[in-house]
Amino acid sequence: MEQRVGVWLIGARGGVATTLIAGTFAIRKGLAGTHGVITETAGFRDLRLTPFGGLVFGGHDVRRVSLRESAAQIYRENGTIRHEILTAIGDDLDRADRDVRPGVLFRSGRAIESLDGVDTSLRAADPAAAVTRLADDIANFKKAHGLVHVVVVNLASTEPALAPDPEHVSAGGIERLLARKEGAPLIASTLYALAAARAGCAYINFTPSPGAFLPGVVEIMGRAGIPFFGSDGKTGETLVKSALAPLFKYRNLRVLSWQGYNLLGDRDGQVLADAENKSTKVASKDNLLHEFLGYPLHSRVEIDYVPSLNDFKTAWDFIHFQGFLDVKMSMQFTWQGCDSILAAPLVLDLVRMAALSLERGEAGPLTHLAIFFKNPLGAPGHDLHAQFHRLLGYVQSHSS
Amino acid sequence: MEQRVGVWLIGARGGVATTLIAGTFAIRKGLAGTHGVITETAGFRDLRLTPFGGLVFGGHDVRRVSLRESAAQIYRENGTIRHEILTAIGDDLDRADRDVRPGVLFRSGRAIESLDGVDTSLRAADPAAAVTRLADDIANFKKAHGLVHVVVVNLASTEPALAPDPEHVSAGGIERLLARKEGAPLIASTLYALAAARAGCAYINFTPSPGAFLPGVVEIMGRAGIPFFGSDGKTGETLVKSALAPLFKYRNLRVLSWQGYNLLGDRDGQVLADAENKSTKVASKDNLLHEFLGYPLHSRVEIDYVPSLNDFKTAWDFIHFQGFLDVKMSMQFTWQGCDSILAAPLVLDLVRMAALSLERGEAGPLTHLAIFFKNPLGAPGHDLHAQFHRLLGYVQSHSS
Amino acid sequence: MEQRVGVWLIGARGGVATTLIAGTFAIRKGLAGTHGVITETAGFRDLRLTPFGGLVFGGHDVRRVSLRESAAQIYRENGTIRHEILTAIGDDLDRADRDVRPGVLFRSGRAIESLDGVDTSLRAADPAAAVTRLADDIANFKKAHGLVHVVVVNLASTEPALAPDPEHVSAGGIERLLARKEGAPLIASTLYALAAARAGCAYINFTPSPGAFLPGVVEIMGRAGIPFFGSDGKTGETLVKSALAPLFKYRNLRVLSWQGYNLLGDRDGQVLADAENKSTKVASKDNLLHEFLGYPLHSRVEIDYVPSLNDFKTAWDFIHFQGFLDVKMSMQFTWQGCDSILAAPLVLDLVRMAALSLERGEAGPLTHLAIFFKNPLGAPGHDLHAQFHRLLGYVQSHSS
Amino acid sequence: MEQRVGVWLIGARGGVATTLIAGTFAIRKGLAGTHGVITETAGFRDLRLTPFGGLVFGGHDVRRVSLRESAAQIYRENGTIRHEILTAIGDDLDRADRDVRPGVLFRSGRAIESLDGVDTSLRAADPAAAVTRLADDIANFKKAHGLVHVVVVNLASTEPALAPDPEHVSAGGIERLLARKEGAPLIASTLYALAAARAGCAYINFTPSPGAFLPGVVEIMGRAGIPFFGSDGKTGETLVKSALAPLFKYRNLRVLSWQGYNLLGDRDGQVLADAENKSTKVASKDNLLHEFLGYPLHSRVEIDYVPSLNDFKTAWDFIHFQGFLDVKMSMQFTWQGCDSILAAPLVLDLVRMAALSLERGEAGPLTHLAIFFKNPLGAPGHDLHAQFHRLLGYVQSHSS
Repeated sequence: MEQRVGVWLIGARGGVATTLIAGTFAIRKGLAGTHGVITETAGFRDLRLTPFGGLVFGGHDVRRVSLRESAAQIYRENGTIRHEILTAIGDDLDRADRDVRPGVLFRSGRAIESLDGVDTSLRAADPAAAVTRLADDIANFKKAHGLVHVVVVNLASTEPALAPDPEHVSAGGIERLLARKEGAPLIASTLYALAAARAGCAYINFTPSPGAFLPGVVEIMGRAGIPFFGSDGKTGETLVKSALAPLFKYRNLRVLSWQGYNLLGDRDGQVLADAENKSTKVASKDNLLHEFLGYPLHSRVEIDYVPSLNDFKTAWDFIHFQGFLDVKMSMQFTWQGCDSILAAPLVLDLVRMAALSLERGEAGPLTHLAIFFKNPLGAPGHDLHAQFHRLLGYVQSHSS
Repeated sequence: MEQRVGVWLIGARGGVATTLIAGTFAIRKGLAGTHGVITETAGFRDLRLTPFGGLVFGGHDVRRVSLRESAAQIYRENGTIRHEILTAIGDDLDRADRDVRPGVLFRSGRAIESLDGVDTSLRAADPAAAVTRLADDIANFKKAHGLVHVVVVNLASTEPALAPDPEHVSAGGIERLLARKEGAPLIASTLYALAAARAGCAYINFTPSPGAFLPGVVEIMGRAGIPFFGSDGKTGETLVKSALAPLFKYRNLRVLSWQGYNLLGDRDGQVLADAENKSTKVASKDNLLHEFLGYPLHSRVEIDYVPSLNDFKTAWDFIHFQGFLDVKMSMQFTWQGCDSILAAPLVLDLVRMAALSLERGEAGPLTHLAIFFKNPLGAPGHDLHAQFHRLLGYVQSHSS
Repeated sequence: MEQRVGVWLIGARGGVATTLIAGTFAIRKGLAGTHGVITETAGFRDLRLTPFGGLVFGGHDVRRVSLRESAAQIYRENGTIRHEILTAIGDDLDRADRDVRPGVLFRSGRAIESLDGVDTSLRAADPAAAVTRLADDIANFKKAHGLVHVVVVNLASTEPALAPDPEHVSAGGIERLLARKEGAPLIASTLYALAAARAGCAYINFTPSPGAFLPGVVEIMGRAGIPFFGSDGKTGETLVKSALAPLFKYRNLRVLSWQGYNLLGDRDGQVLADAENKSTKVASKDNLLHEFLGYPLHSRVEIDYVPSLNDFKTAWDFIHFQGFLDVKMSMQFTWQGCDSILAAPLVLDLVRMAALSLERGEAGPLTHLAIFFKNPLGAPGHDLHAQFHRLLGYVQSHSS
Repeated sequence: MEQRVGVWLIGARGGVATTLIAGTFAIRKGLAGTHGVITETAGFRDLRLTPFGGLVFGGHDVRRVSLRESAAQIYRENGTIRHEILTAIGDDLDRADRDVRPGVLFRSGRAIESLDGVDTSLRAADPAAAVTRLADDIANFKKAHGLVHVVVVNLASTEPALAPDPEHVSAGGIERLLARKEGAPLIASTLYALAAARAGCAYINFTPSPGAFLPGVVEIMGRAGIPFFGSDGKTGETLVKSALAPLFKYRNLRVLSWQGYNLLGDRDGQVLADAENKSTKVASKDNLLHEFLGYPLHSRVEIDYVPSLNDFKTAWDFIHFQGFLDVKMSMQFTWQGCDSILAAPLVLDLVRMAALSLERGEAGPLTHLAIFFKNPLGAPGHDLHAQFHRLLGYVQSHSS
């Protein structure tokens, strides 16, 4: 029998997680294609990846809602999980829902805590105890389903910024902070990352949340010998930026201004409407241009909550540039993509690639996965093409 | 003293040629920067390229207008050659204008022949004699200025299609056709290419005109031992396409439809308003997507003449694509660029690179220059990134 | 008991008709709101209009498909008729479907005849007989349901152009042509219009098809004393044009060029992909600007078939204009609307208003309805605001 | 001899003022057309308006720069005043410059005070004395040039908000505040408005600055018997809004969200980059939608400073709306206009119309000029069409 791999999702009933779980069930039943899943393209054919049928889902969430209800809401608001699919996979969703455990709130901030359905009783008084509970949940899941590997993916809402603390920089410091209880300058995403390390799982930070890769946490992950990577999935406007910025560089066209306006209406948009949380995200989105182009330019990334859009993000970018004879010209684009639909298949790819790393005994940052992230950990550079070839190189050298 | 290189432009008083000549003079006088010129970027620093001061301009044209008048018209219509520059370089333009000789009309078609100022007495009765005259013009220019090399660049208006003929496929066939006089199934761009080969110059086909690279002409160029390349400079909408198409490929997002509408108002637009000439151009622009993506998709490239835009092209592209769960999404962009301003610096790059090839004794198609063209001769593939790295590779291996 | 009004739709199983029938049922059941229906706004409150519950549907169609299947296809392709609605109104659709009778094909052209499901046996050999059959169908419908009035609305695909004929200009001429059988220079839309007149119904031409308002047909309608109006519902890009053109006029900004590109993927798009049919439509769309602005300008209306869009039309317009000091500026817009969703409520409005005219004994062209059409018959001018106030004026003078 | 009218501009060397003065001189010399000037259209032919040759320019400014330098900067940065015009009208500009007097700074805020060239010694210690000085300047100008009327137009940068004060509501209160010297809760735009009233001029507030139409100031203007109007010229994005919003209203399409992003790079943009000043402007721009549509909707108006654009504003608006069957659709537009070029001719129109009112002895708010403003004083409603017809009505009843 085939080895089965666990997919443990932080934010398991959110839009991306629900879409990816529902999508996997739909693919298994032949009700949907595999567009968007990179590991389904020809280049990955000879890699020994877990088939869709071998993935088992579970996770943590702080909201009281079932997966089936979450999927039904997505159908109503976005239509992306079609009605026939909803009907066909309802029982599968209910079964997966039994493996979703209560998550944890810790400095999660007003925006997240006031989301519809959030169980504020999950505020942790003792972070160390919370890590233990979270790690036990994962271990129990692994055992109950007889899983060979588990990949933990953080898909939860963007947290507010965490003020720097001298103790953040070492494993010892993190452990001392854990012991400090309620006042500790830690944040929920740190606790989840530590739980993954404790449970010996791979860890993928698909959000921009700052707590997962504090230097001390990275040190702990290193000691645990787990593979890990992030942060912040590159799904939409930033993806387009990373494809277009090279054009201006290759042609020696000087970018004068690059303004980006992101309109989104989902839970993500609602959380990012809060200035605390937005700052975390904007910083993550605005890095690319200056680093890639190598000169200062006027740029702005704005994120606006437009509820009526639901999950269909609309982004408008305006690029003002200068060419020969110093003539100014411009380009503008509008991106209309569904965030969950763009993100979900990437998570499937990351899970499969991380499971492969677990199987091969690889540990540390999975830098060959840089193409998936806005801020690839320890893999500087934002050249989409270079990132693609880096991934292809890994794939070719590991194909059987 | 530095070696001087001749730049022989077919269509020497057209928009691109005038812009590039005026721009070079402006750069020499410190009145303009070098944005858009790729060979001015850091990566090319160690290549022994001809400095701007070492370029000497001449060429052929079928229109009766002076370079100074052409530059003044560009100032009035587009403002891209600024008034101060126009004043400062007027004498230089007049001097260069003395090296512009009458070109040739041969099956050039109604659209070109009815352009303002075209001297229809330049219709050639005897193509062989025309090649000799054109080649002599170039040879005289080379001698008069004591030039070490001459690069010929075709910047003339897009010609109508040339019906295939069995004699096109060999050098012997081309020579037999030349002898046939007026009825010969040849076209002006063939005559210019043959003249360049005869004069031992490098030859760059920056237009989509079909006559330059007939197999028989390529054979003749090969025998002449000259370096050559083309066709159709990649300056605007197609450039953006070649930067964006990889995004969809890398992410396994299925492109359903890609519609592109190009609005332009310059002489190029006027010629392309003629169905005969448009077909040549559209074929050149529409290749990329199907080849690059590797599957059939609904696509269209439309070119419309909008006189009020003059040289400021406006292109709108709409891309409809499908992702996870078969959800359809879309992207659209508007490109507002000045065609001559985008093309002129690329021609300077091509001249410098071709002169380097002449200096190094390289012959045949200069495939490392694929990034400059919509249809790179003998260098299949349209991946902008791959093309950039190919060019960088050449540069690095030839840097001193 | 309330008076019931018959809605007889030519093209009864097409996208607009199915949407409007399904939508009316959904509104009746409280499953959808009434956005888009103008007669539901406050200004119409005191007019004695037929309530949604008093409308009875029937019609002609040349395609073999049921209303339920048509609605299911709309759900699958566009999602605009939601699944819950589809389920709730299935039986109502089946009931209405029993009142759909076979239509007629007469010079309908290759594009229409090759649509999926078209019953080519409906090609009429004898146009006079066809008119009789069509009129009988309507009369039977009226009688069977005990309807006080019937409004006939042509929603069928755009026909090819009909070559002018001297007999078109008088009632007698039309009657002579009818007698000529197969070779007669008439077209299906003429036959439907004559049938409506024969049956004493109001007639609304929501398509641009040219046959309904030939002068001779208008004369016949006049003699029949029926109210009638059209042509070509103003639903999308043209609607935006008619709202924006006044801006340029009021501000004395000179429009230099107005280019409009319409991408659509429904059956309408498929028919319009045929050059014969497209010319009918483009002529209808391009009138407005020149007439309204009162000076010549460069303009173009292009319609492209992009199947993947289905009924979600995407139109891009580029407007180039000149202001003070002769400075050129531009505006562009992208309209992303669902054609059937935009058209269906207007048809409901037209039916209610035409039924009111029948009730009040009004005959002839209903010029107060000009706001609904691209080419309002006998109501020159395209000023959206003026049209709105004309409609309001009628409403106010007829409110009880 | 013809009567001559004085045009006294607050902000006389700013972009709009320089453009309008230069433009008037260019028109007089036959170097430019009159696009954008509404009073030059046919409908105004029979009104006795001051010809361009009868306008004499002067004004106040707080910046040390000459009109000629300001025009040269506009040529360099925007190209909208062409070089030939600059050369031809240089002497006229110098002559007009002699009639520009030092303005006044009073609570003008950090953004305005830190503009390039601002003479901070113009900060007034005694507002009453400042009003006297400003009024004397205008009176001297009138006398020196033998002018029959003077129209004062405020074109200065948008001021920060002024905190409400109980004394603002009456003429007496304003007079008491003037006496309070430096601490007085007044603002420069109040002082200019009072000076205009004192000098018996018409007063037009083309900016959104809040000080001109405090109730007490309006009372004083009323007593002075002068005609006056404003505020905030409707030139670009808001103009488009006021043309498009009716479309949604007329069609009963429910606007869910309307997001507007304005990118501008001129001095106006620089001042509005300051949060204090931006709030004044955004409030002015965002009123229209809610008032006109009559229901709450999600909307946002954002103004961003993008220096490289200079005076070429680029605005992107996204409109999300709901139609039949509650289906969501969208429209987006990009407006690329030059603010000064759009504003200057409107100021000429306002001057001519206000001079006519002076000539006819009209006093109080000139509500027939509502079409020119974002916030027409005492003329509620934002329907562009209604405003146009109101203006036409006035014109027709006053045509000779």
